[in-house]
Amino acid sequence: MKAIEWTGSVLRLLDQRLLPHDQVWIDCDRAEAVAKAIVDMVVRGAPAIAAAAAYGVTLEARSQTAASPAAFRQQVEAVMQQLEQTRPTAVNLKWALHRMKAVLQAFPADATAAAMAHALEQEANQIASEDVATNRAIGEVGAALFANPVNILTHCNTGSLATVGYGTALGVIRRLHELRRLRMVWVDETRPYLQGARLTAFELSAEQIPYRLITDNTAAYLMQQGAVDAVIVGADRIARNGDTANKIGTYGLAVLCQHHHIPFYVAAPLSTFDWSLASGQDIPIETRNAAEVTHLFGRALAPTGAEALHVAFDVTPHSLITAIITEAGVIEQPALASMQAFRRRVGEAEGKG
Amino acid sequence: MKAIEWTGSVLRLLDQRLLPHDQVWIDCDRAEAVAKAIVDMVVRGAPAIAAAAAYGVTLEARSQTAASPAAFRQQVEAVMQQLEQTRPTAVNLKWALHRMKAVLQAFPADATAAAMAHALEQEANQIASEDVATNRAIGEVGAALFANPVNILTHCNTGSLATVGYGTALGVIRRLHELRRLRMVWVDETRPYLQGARLTAFELSAEQIPYRLITDNTAAYLMQQGAVDAVIVGADRIARNGDTANKIGTYGLAVLCQHHHIPFYVAAPLSTFDWSLASGQDIPIETRNAAEVTHLFGRALAPTGAEALHVAFDVTPHSLITAIITEAGVIEQPALASMQAFRRRVGEAEGKG
Repeated sequence: MKAIEWTGSVLRLLDQRLLPHDQVWIDCDRAEAVAKAIVDMVVRGAPAIAAAAAYGVTLEARSQTAASPAAFRQQVEAVMQQLEQTRPTAVNLKWALHRMKAVLQAFPADATAAAMAHALEQEANQIASEDVATNRAIGEVGAALFANPVNILTHCNTGSLATVGYGTALGVIRRLHELRRLRMVWVDETRPYLQGARLTAFELSAEQIPYRLITDNTAAYLMQQGAVDAVIVGADRIARNGDTANKIGTYGLAVLCQHHHIPFYVAAPLSTFDWSLASGQDIPIETRNAAEVTHLFGRALAPTGAEALHVAFDVTPHSLITAIITEAGVIEQPALASMQAFRRRVGEAEGKG
Repeated sequence: MKAIEWTGSVLRLLDQRLLPHDQVWIDCDRAEAVAKAIVDMVVRGAPAIAAAAAYGVTLEARSQTAASPAAFRQQVEAVMQQLEQTRPTAVNLKWALHRMKAVLQAFPADATAAAMAHALEQEANQIASEDVATNRAIGEVGAALFANPVNILTHCNTGSLATVGYGTALGVIRRLHELRRLRMVWVDETRPYLQGARLTAFELSAEQIPYRLITDNTAAYLMQQGAVDAVIVGADRIARNGDTANKIGTYGLAVLCQHHHIPFYVAAPLSTFDWSLASGQDIPIETRNAAEVTHLFGRALAPTGAEALHVAFDVTPHSLITAIITEAGVIEQPALASMQAFRRRVGEAEGKG
């Protein structure tokens, strides 16, 4: 399953708003179209947004190859800024754009627009292909945490549809299934956007991974009944101390896990880490249109004029997180010290230490 | 606002499945129609179901006035049994039917069917009118717990639509509003049936009580932000030790309250207490059709063939309940001893001690 595809000239996005019933691809041939697709949630999921934004920059670059080097840079950088503002919470978007910007800045002032455009496209391709490899590594690292078949509860969608492929939290679940260490997945439907019901159930159905869909408010009951061995979720941004922003409802699950002595895992690539932020309090939390709560399929769920609050993310304090699963290993009991030790270790391994 | 009305010959029920958009009344002229209305959730809410069932018995009794006394009793008791099986979790239903049965049993063997039918109708009317008075008392008792204006979070619908009038948890909220001690109500939408979005928001809108609708998974975030001063919910059955069955999601809220040091209140009439059960483990929990999770407005939310679990209630252990609010006073820190002491006090007050 794939939801994002670069044809060499357009970025094709599977419209996730229409899944699972209609599989409609939207071709984006301009950066503006990509920005709109991110805002409108045609494409969603922190790693998928990152790759989409990189291709958005690529599209702009390709359209400017006739420009002077200075005009090219100005135009491409303006588009980077526009793309960066599409969604505030996930940091992978910024990370991808910073990589693209670094490519641009590595060129001398007199480099041709065509050369820069070519390099930007290569970098976008690199970001996309790295993401799949990263997710496979996350799956491997995460699956190693479980010796016996388990019942996993997950929230939102962190699978192939949220990434370039394979998935983060759902990557761990996929890998557990491959290793025959998965009994069952409890899928939170994840209101209001129903990423669990529409997307995760869709992915799991397609791969015949055993699951049951539940309303978000059923998780506590299942934990009380002993039916959940672990919760694994993705992340949109992880602060220096391990505090993690993720889809609304994640924080509540973490509290419920603590109460029931169930391990609570966050699975995310290193691109989700924002070392510039001291804690989760500094992570901007996106509020979206209340109509996404009050309406579904264009029909009102609530009385006309009903006021609703739509907070799209919440922050789970690091103290509630058993471990963060990354492509470079596991951070047990994440906190400032363990996070810094991990960062040093990873930096050294990458020769940046 | 009223959702249940006895005309003297038929029971009129406001079809709560169609609220808030369509206000359609269903006239039940036979007990079978009432039983079906309860099963199908045309009428819902533990106290409302109780009154509806009493009128169901009344309808049967009225249709049997030409029968012999023995045939009358046999027929009416058969219908009582049928009505009792419509929904398993709420105990108010049984309580109302026991009251109706006691009326029948108080008659001598040779009493006429007409006399018994008349007495049953009077008892049903009594159950209905008592319910409103009971709810007003609950509102008064509950409101006295708050000295200053508060933000209350509530789950499901416990208002005029769930009762014969005024409401239990929503009765407390109504009373707080009347006393100008209510700042705001956070309304859990309450998936899958959306009683919060469809019914509670409808009631609060109609009375211009300030509220905001939220998805169920937003409650933890609001608690974390300090935006919730107390949670008040209703109950479908309360065991001897204070363990409380209520709409799925209630237990999770209670755990979240404990974590955030927020008081968690249950508001329910004495008819919700099941003194025959030692603990919540003995309360039967209704599972309903999974299609109520996978579909909405007849449209699928999930992929075709998606399997879902629909547990309609959960049980909150008494240790998580700050107090139970009843028409006869508050039970602080409910547990076997405090519950028994309360029962003795209430029994003595009623001359049953």
